[in-house]
Amino acid sequence: MAGRLLVEEPGLAPILLGGRAIGSEGPIFIAGPCAIESEEQAIRIARRVKAAGAIAFRGGAFKPRTSPYSFQGLGERGLAILEVVRRETGLLICTEALDVDCFDAVRRVADIVQIGSRNMSHSSLLKRAGRCGKPVLLKRGFAATLDEFLHAAEYVVAGGNRDVMLCERGIRTFCSHSRNTLDLQAVLALRARTSLPVIVDPSHAAGRRSDVLPLSCAAAAVGAEGVLVEVHDRPDEALCDGDQAILPETFVELVDRVRLVSKLRCAGR
Amino acid sequence: MAGRLLVEEPGLAPILLGGRAIGSEGPIFIAGPCAIESEEQAIRIARRVKAAGAIAFRGGAFKPRTSPYSFQGLGERGLAILEVVRRETGLLICTEALDVDCFDAVRRVADIVQIGSRNMSHSSLLKRAGRCGKPVLLKRGFAATLDEFLHAAEYVVAGGNRDVMLCERGIRTFCSHSRNTLDLQAVLALRARTSLPVIVDPSHAAGRRSDVLPLSCAAAAVGAEGVLVEVHDRPDEALCDGDQAILPETFVELVDRVRLVSKLRCAGR
Amino acid sequence: MAGRLLVEEPGLAPILLGGRAIGSEGPIFIAGPCAIESEEQAIRIARRVKAAGAIAFRGGAFKPRTSPYSFQGLGERGLAILEVVRRETGLLICTEALDVDCFDAVRRVADIVQIGSRNMSHSSLLKRAGRCGKPVLLKRGFAATLDEFLHAAEYVVAGGNRDVMLCERGIRTFCSHSRNTLDLQAVLALRARTSLPVIVDPSHAAGRRSDVLPLSCAAAAVGAEGVLVEVHDRPDEALCDGDQAILPETFVELVDRVRLVSKLRCAGR
Amino acid sequence: MAGRLLVEEPGLAPILLGGRAIGSEGPIFIAGPCAIESEEQAIRIARRVKAAGAIAFRGGAFKPRTSPYSFQGLGERGLAILEVVRRETGLLICTEALDVDCFDAVRRVADIVQIGSRNMSHSSLLKRAGRCGKPVLLKRGFAATLDEFLHAAEYVVAGGNRDVMLCERGIRTFCSHSRNTLDLQAVLALRARTSLPVIVDPSHAAGRRSDVLPLSCAAAAVGAEGVLVEVHDRPDEALCDGDQAILPETFVELVDRVRLVSKLRCAGR
Repeated sequence: MAGRLLVEEPGLAPILLGGRAIGSEGPIFIAGPCAIESEEQAIRIARRVKAAGAIAFRGGAFKPRTSPYSFQGLGERGLAILEVVRRETGLLICTEALDVDCFDAVRRVADIVQIGSRNMSHSSLLKRAGRCGKPVLLKRGFAATLDEFLHAAEYVVAGGNRDVMLCERGIRTFCSHSRNTLDLQAVLALRARTSLPVIVDPSHAAGRRSDVLPLSCAAAAVGAEGVLVEVHDRPDEALCDGDQAILPETFVELVDRVRLVSKLRCAGR
Repeated sequence: MAGRLLVEEPGLAPILLGGRAIGSEGPIFIAGPCAIESEEQAIRIARRVKAAGAIAFRGGAFKPRTSPYSFQGLGERGLAILEVVRRETGLLICTEALDVDCFDAVRRVADIVQIGSRNMSHSSLLKRAGRCGKPVLLKRGFAATLDEFLHAAEYVVAGGNRDVMLCERGIRTFCSHSRNTLDLQAVLALRARTSLPVIVDPSHAAGRRSDVLPLSCAAAAVGAEGVLVEVHDRPDEALCDGDQAILPETFVELVDRVRLVSKLRCAGR
Repeated sequence: MAGRLLVEEPGLAPILLGGRAIGSEGPIFIAGPCAIESEEQAIRIARRVKAAGAIAFRGGAFKPRTSPYSFQGLGERGLAILEVVRRETGLLICTEALDVDCFDAVRRVADIVQIGSRNMSHSSLLKRAGRCGKPVLLKRGFAATLDEFLHAAEYVVAGGNRDVMLCERGIRTFCSHSRNTLDLQAVLALRARTSLPVIVDPSHAAGRRSDVLPLSCAAAAVGAEGVLVEVHDRPDEALCDGDQAILPETFVELVDRVRLVSKLRCAGR
Repeated sequence: MAGRLLVEEPGLAPILLGGRAIGSEGPIFIAGPCAIESEEQAIRIARRVKAAGAIAFRGGAFKPRTSPYSFQGLGERGLAILEVVRRETGLLICTEALDVDCFDAVRRVADIVQIGSRNMSHSSLLKRAGRCGKPVLLKRGFAATLDEFLHAAEYVVAGGNRDVMLCERGIRTFCSHSRNTLDLQAVLALRARTSLPVIVDPSHAAGRRSDVLPLSCAAAAVGAEGVLVEVHDRPDEALCDGDQAILPETFVELVDRVRLVSKLRCAGR
């Protein structure tokens, strides 16, 4: 792994989302439900997160699940709903490309193509993302070193796509009091090695909604350029990960607090 | 994750390899180089491991690599070499299907389709393996719980393919004195939950060749039904993971020792 | 471990430091060098951290070291210096009782008796702390679960001393980009189980000074009642852990930022 | 940590136990209950393990416990019972010195002074062990690197006592299918750095009795010079860790199997 990677080159061009460079106007917010469940659900939540300040709507059409018997997402129908969401709300769409089979369909709909934690080392998917012409949100594998994470990003960049957003979402440790341990030092360490923007997803690490707002603020304190959070207005009815989804009203407060923390420039940038 | 999984049903039919049920005649040995480098290299090593008692030849044509700049395997040419190896030696072929793109090509050549550690949660690949009609060697993700591992196997079995061999290959821990920590207790815990055979790959965990033989014997002591080891006759010239490849003469000794330990039935089976 | 612990009882009386209840006036700051090196060094640094807003001076007289050949602290002479620091600056003194042998000597000088991470499960030391009549700052073992941490605190409280401050200082994970992984979710989880104050030590987790300020702000974001930081005005000359000591001028900025973040009440308290 | 440690010097003199050098006649066996519960219990079990081939009896008089409300051992009375055990059976006594307070009392009775996993970094205890004139069994901290482990041993050796037995007893990982993950690669890595004997304690890692025998054999396969196991004839009545105690009849079988595996010299020594 000798030699400087492309992702380590100083001064990579900023990534534009909706015409604005990430980081130029404070942290960005990408929010929405874990999974798209229906058009009504998606639009209802999208309107709330848009009103609160989100730039993009997140929602899975294809869901990576531990068990083959769990809800696997609405698939193509979910993508169609996401198109409606964009048209109705003007929000950008961030959704996961689970594999190469669904990549093109996802790519057509997504403004930001998400590559999930379990797929961080999926080289054919990364190569495809390198040619897709859309910004990529690459989640860190939950047991990946930063070297492995940056090399995964390098697969995308080496393929011709420099618009990679790195996403820290928690690592697996011995701890049982949380689902994963959010590694905020990774944000600082990545900062020291790359100019790619770093986004933090506190929802998966938290596993419970009460921790999402404070962890988002902590992410802002270490200089994260954005947060990706799960929001649901009826979390008890959510088909997936309802325990960690925050309510739209909490998201309003979260946006406010994260912006205020970010303005303090604790991470010196 | 409630309810018993198919992989947890008692008395799954034994997996046949070369007409013999795995486990019926002591541990099986799958051996060969990390990557196929040339026909000459492959056949040379294959003859040595065959003579020593291996039932199958392992060798990667498609290699999952951390860096996009590392050797990625010979691809289709590697598969063609593997066909020659089988014809020339009569060994079964075990090789990795890295993704759905290469799956069919790999499936045509392989007698055992390997799914690697990084792909353990790659559901579309697992589903494809569930329909492939060939025994599958599924490696445990290096940070996967046993529940996640068994659910990954369930993806294959639920797809109609009950011939899944589970492979423990080491987990990521805080330790730096080894590449990964071989979790032999996983072998025992899997035994208690499933009748699928458990194979141990000590090479990746070891990271250095001197540890491979003793770890293989330790695997036999806890009742592993087989070992998967990297063997190279010119490890200094290996294009991939040469440090952990053992010499053919060490493999001869390994087969002997593993068989002797296995006969002691320390794990009470 | 059935039954509610004393440390889990709601509404434990607040801990008084210098006549003020911890948490009543924003986060507290405990700062100073890793080790007491000389009277001149200690007083010089103490004046700086006092001026910046610290309530207590930290500095080790007895140092727990991995190697028997490393500097082990000035011992009794270090304690004498700490007495001078208090007299000269009015700062409270926080210093570690490494074992029962030095406990009484440390107790005489300390206003806050620190029990280090390696000693979190040292029951005879905890029992001694339970009878010492001084507030105790108990660091979490770097591989301790929260249950183990709270049971360690219980040893002190069951001995009659309810004034225990819990200190999160980072856990050992597979990560190599930082010395330890600061587990800020532990702060939130402890909050949910105990009313004992939670202090965060970002210095040991960071291992490098540039990360200390942002991590301190992140700690404030999750509701930590205080931070414990290593400050040295000549870190290059420090006998111990100089790489992670921040400069006094950075500490001034840290106090300011932590207070501002804390006022935003991100953790909803 | 530069420079070779004393523990890394080649050719340290072998440790004599009962007049025989450890390792000269195959692996040694240290066995007995987790805690001394009564004279009758201790002698009853001691006779069984002696008959099966144990060289030493293990049993805690002072127990390190997570909770202050758990049984803490019989203390001095337990030590008196251990003296009776030696007199009645001729077994050597291996028991833990929990802290410096009880060190001298333990030292008087013990033939092997055990330092527990939680105390591996307890430097004053290690220094005391360095002057005690008895062989020391030093357990690896459950989250200690090998460097930290060897430096802990160095504290003892630097104090003048070269008779240190290193004991691997499992590390804390993300796994929940076992209490700890037995790190058998540590045995191999320690072998490469020191000539001090390495003993394996599979009981604590296992957490359940069925795994103890196979893990002991696995330890023999990687060249451990001995095993330390918990044996109880009435595990359901045990005051401490009954789930992992094996029955005396299983211990008979364990001794037999471990000796057979050891004779195969899988670890090449």
